[in-house]
Amino acid sequence: MFPLNQWYVAGFASELQDKPLARVLLNHPVVMFRTADGGVAALEDRCCHRSVPLSCGTLDGGGIRCGYHGLLYAASGQCIEIPGQTKIPGKAKVAAYPAVVRNGVIWIWFGEQPGVQPDTQPPELAAHEDARYRYKTGAFHYKAPYQLIHDNLLDLSHVGYLHGKTIGGNPKVHMEAPTIVSGDEEHVRVVRWMKASTPPATYTSAWPFKGLVDRWQEIEFHTTHLHIFTGAVEAGAEPLENPQRGGFHMRGFHGITPETANTSHYFWSMASSSHPEQPDNIDVVYQQTEQTFEEDRVLIEAQYQNMRQFDGAAIIDIHVDAGANRARRIIATQIAAQLSDQASAHVAA
Amino acid sequence: MFPLNQWYVAGFASELQDKPLARVLLNHPVVMFRTADGGVAALEDRCCHRSVPLSCGTLDGGGIRCGYHGLLYAASGQCIEIPGQTKIPGKAKVAAYPAVVRNGVIWIWFGEQPGVQPDTQPPELAAHEDARYRYKTGAFHYKAPYQLIHDNLLDLSHVGYLHGKTIGGNPKVHMEAPTIVSGDEEHVRVVRWMKASTPPATYTSAWPFKGLVDRWQEIEFHTTHLHIFTGAVEAGAEPLENPQRGGFHMRGFHGITPETANTSHYFWSMASSSHPEQPDNIDVVYQQTEQTFEEDRVLIEAQYQNMRQFDGAAIIDIHVDAGANRARRIIATQIAAQLSDQASAHVAA
Amino acid sequence: MFPLNQWYVAGFASELQDKPLARVLLNHPVVMFRTADGGVAALEDRCCHRSVPLSCGTLDGGGIRCGYHGLLYAASGQCIEIPGQTKIPGKAKVAAYPAVVRNGVIWIWFGEQPGVQPDTQPPELAAHEDARYRYKTGAFHYKAPYQLIHDNLLDLSHVGYLHGKTIGGNPKVHMEAPTIVSGDEEHVRVVRWMKASTPPATYTSAWPFKGLVDRWQEIEFHTTHLHIFTGAVEAGAEPLENPQRGGFHMRGFHGITPETANTSHYFWSMASSSHPEQPDNIDVVYQQTEQTFEEDRVLIEAQYQNMRQFDGAAIIDIHVDAGANRARRIIATQIAAQLSDQASAHVAA
Repeated sequence: MFPLNQWYVAGFASELQDKPLARVLLNHPVVMFRTADGGVAALEDRCCHRSVPLSCGTLDGGGIRCGYHGLLYAASGQCIEIPGQTKIPGKAKVAAYPAVVRNGVIWIWFGEQPGVQPDTQPPELAAHEDARYRYKTGAFHYKAPYQLIHDNLLDLSHVGYLHGKTIGGNPKVHMEAPTIVSGDEEHVRVVRWMKASTPPATYTSAWPFKGLVDRWQEIEFHTTHLHIFTGAVEAGAEPLENPQRGGFHMRGFHGITPETANTSHYFWSMASSSHPEQPDNIDVVYQQTEQTFEEDRVLIEAQYQNMRQFDGAAIIDIHVDAGANRARRIIATQIAAQLSDQASAHVAA
Repeated sequence: MFPLNQWYVAGFASELQDKPLARVLLNHPVVMFRTADGGVAALEDRCCHRSVPLSCGTLDGGGIRCGYHGLLYAASGQCIEIPGQTKIPGKAKVAAYPAVVRNGVIWIWFGEQPGVQPDTQPPELAAHEDARYRYKTGAFHYKAPYQLIHDNLLDLSHVGYLHGKTIGGNPKVHMEAPTIVSGDEEHVRVVRWMKASTPPATYTSAWPFKGLVDRWQEIEFHTTHLHIFTGAVEAGAEPLENPQRGGFHMRGFHGITPETANTSHYFWSMASSSHPEQPDNIDVVYQQTEQTFEEDRVLIEAQYQNMRQFDGAAIIDIHVDAGANRARRIIATQIAAQLSDQASAHVAA
Repeated sequence: MFPLNQWYVAGFASELQDKPLARVLLNHPVVMFRTADGGVAALEDRCCHRSVPLSCGTLDGGGIRCGYHGLLYAASGQCIEIPGQTKIPGKAKVAAYPAVVRNGVIWIWFGEQPGVQPDTQPPELAAHEDARYRYKTGAFHYKAPYQLIHDNLLDLSHVGYLHGKTIGGNPKVHMEAPTIVSGDEEHVRVVRWMKASTPPATYTSAWPFKGLVDRWQEIEFHTTHLHIFTGAVEAGAEPLENPQRGGFHMRGFHGITPETANTSHYFWSMASSSHPEQPDNIDVVYQQTEQTFEEDRVLIEAQYQNMRQFDGAAIIDIHVDAGANRARRIIATQIAAQLSDQASAHVAA
């Protein structure tokens, strides 16, 4: 079971081209495509006739046509044409999921009550519209459950050991950095500062740092995605308390969407600021970020395989786990509430 | 469970060369080879000593010798030599299945009563012996159950959507063609005419059609195989009612043999007539047929994967399903009768 | 269940380099590495923090450091450093298995009582230290259970049918060679002589045999490994009864270690004597031995697949099975005793 009544990332708007976009999201095979009005449709990826994936078909006038016998579906999921047959049975339809494009991201809603429309808009992704930044997007497929990726992103103390070639730095400086964890019933916030530290490879590749830097990591966890604001200024140049501080900014967006209980989609974007001397640093930032996230993927998949191999083995907590454990409690509470809702509905029925 | 007391296609005679031919048929691993009298033997593919596949061994004087310790088996399945040992235990034997080569096709019998010989000959495949035609054979392995292939072959309305590059044509013409479905307890017959229609690519590649054609599709379903007679004459040139009509003929043979409950063998041949101007059209007919059947395989495997993904999801029927549904009822009745036979045997025992 | 209280081969000392060596042995994922004193450590391959394989980490001062958050483990399995944290919880440790390097082989002990040290030394492998011989090592991974490899090695009658290109020879000579099987509760010994026989390809490649040879095979089975001493002298040159006889010697060591119930490690070495005319014959002996063992692997994996396909099918014994069946009885007795020990412990508890 996954947290429902949530907007999940289903992909990027740039993926909506002249072919259907097929993806399994929260165990639901979904086909997505541009509608006639420029929006996005997200349908159950199954023709109601003989169960062929609609994504094997073709886009046709804002709808989608099955590639086997030509049944045509509207963005609502209703079948609106059966070639060679006048009458269209009432049952000739498939599920449609609420879906919206915002700031270049496709968001999809999976609710506890199928068919009920969400009462909120998808989250805003301000960095995609911020004139100070340029950004690029990427995606990874993980053979691991989504919460292991949350754990990884909420605990950046690991970057020294795992990402020494890119965003790392001295491992001990990372492990010993003071960490402030806060949050509420729906969010977690983790802030770490590493003052007067040596800038890592990604930073010196993207910004003309001359010496030591004051470096920060600000992680903001939401159930379906995280925002991570990292960066640095030259040591002592500006107070890190200043929200308008300059320097080198990396604003990462991380949409973690379960594919199944054991596999995940990781949709991400990285936006960065640039220095007048290095105006085109987004390419190097992107390349190094992709390499960093690939290192995470390899390790987390190995971790998950090992968890299965050692099924049920005890684990211990250390000081870096506070943020990740807090996020796990939020999701556990959300799932417990859903189970309670299901039980109530069962009694009422 | 599969329909038994049937001749199934096990392959083509051309496959019987100087090495054993191994294939799983109706869940039975079988090894086939030429016997000394030019016939074919079909044995359980397992040495009775230590279970090594006999197909890892060698052919020896019309029998087969295990590649591990040299046990030699006759075509009857009896072990007739154990090197280094005089006595051959009575239990030293493996199952033998009735098998016959006819018209270049290897047929194998799986009966309800193991060891009972069939009381019928395998079906005739007249097109392989017809002087008007030349033919070629092919085989596909399907990751899908055999009845999905029946569905596909009994409903050629799909060729417009799926096979536009070869035997298709205007999809709507196909979907709207009048279809006559008939049959009895063991057969289904589906006939469709598309008069004054544009000939598809395969037809114009193989025959010098100048304009519109009168086109036919005649499908004949048997439990283990189908004959499909398609073709065309120039529009108005000859009545399609005439069984001796000329024009371009394609006579397809489709042996659909379950490998397991979820995988299938598709053994096929395509025979075609030729025009004096294009005497060597069999190569282009074969190439386009193979491409067509590959398109079917890709779609049907995607269909089956989706059926598993949406396990138990409801489907609806449309007008094109009459023939396929009739074939499914025949097989359901045959399997029900077998279950009844089993229950009776159990009570009697 | 596997025989316990045994030294199993875990690999070769030459594999212990500057990276962790990871391997699943008897269902246990194990990481191995050189200790500061030149010995070998074998730990449970799992960080106690978040279950990442320790083998994804780095070697550090005779210990191993996790690649995720830098926890450092001693050869004892105890965690001795958690970066950024002063206190190390008592539970911060992983299992350590007794392991020893002897004669270039890494041996590991899996006991009935975890944590109890073995009261024996690992077996000696004299051929690795014998000045008459040179040797090379190899390893195969088998998708088959370990006892099928025992069966193969205890019955060399198969070499004529399976290994005709290397160590085979006339198959019937092998199948008809007199075989003497002996042993006790822990060992099996199989001796076969093939006097005045044609030397096989491997022998004539490695030794200047001119005519027929007197050939021997002496197999010695232990629960976790076999020694196989084969060779030949020119026919009539020396009595095969003489333990100090000369001629061409091949001394094979075969460490058969279950990976899981259905997969195995096959660690082997081949030592051979050389003739003054062919002092460098070890390369050809090694190449031909590797080819021979690969032929075995392919056949045994096919055998195992077939055993699964024909689950539970009856098998018959022939004259060559005496040694292998005796070894299977030894292992069955050892496992029965373990089950009895477990039941007793359960009653006592």
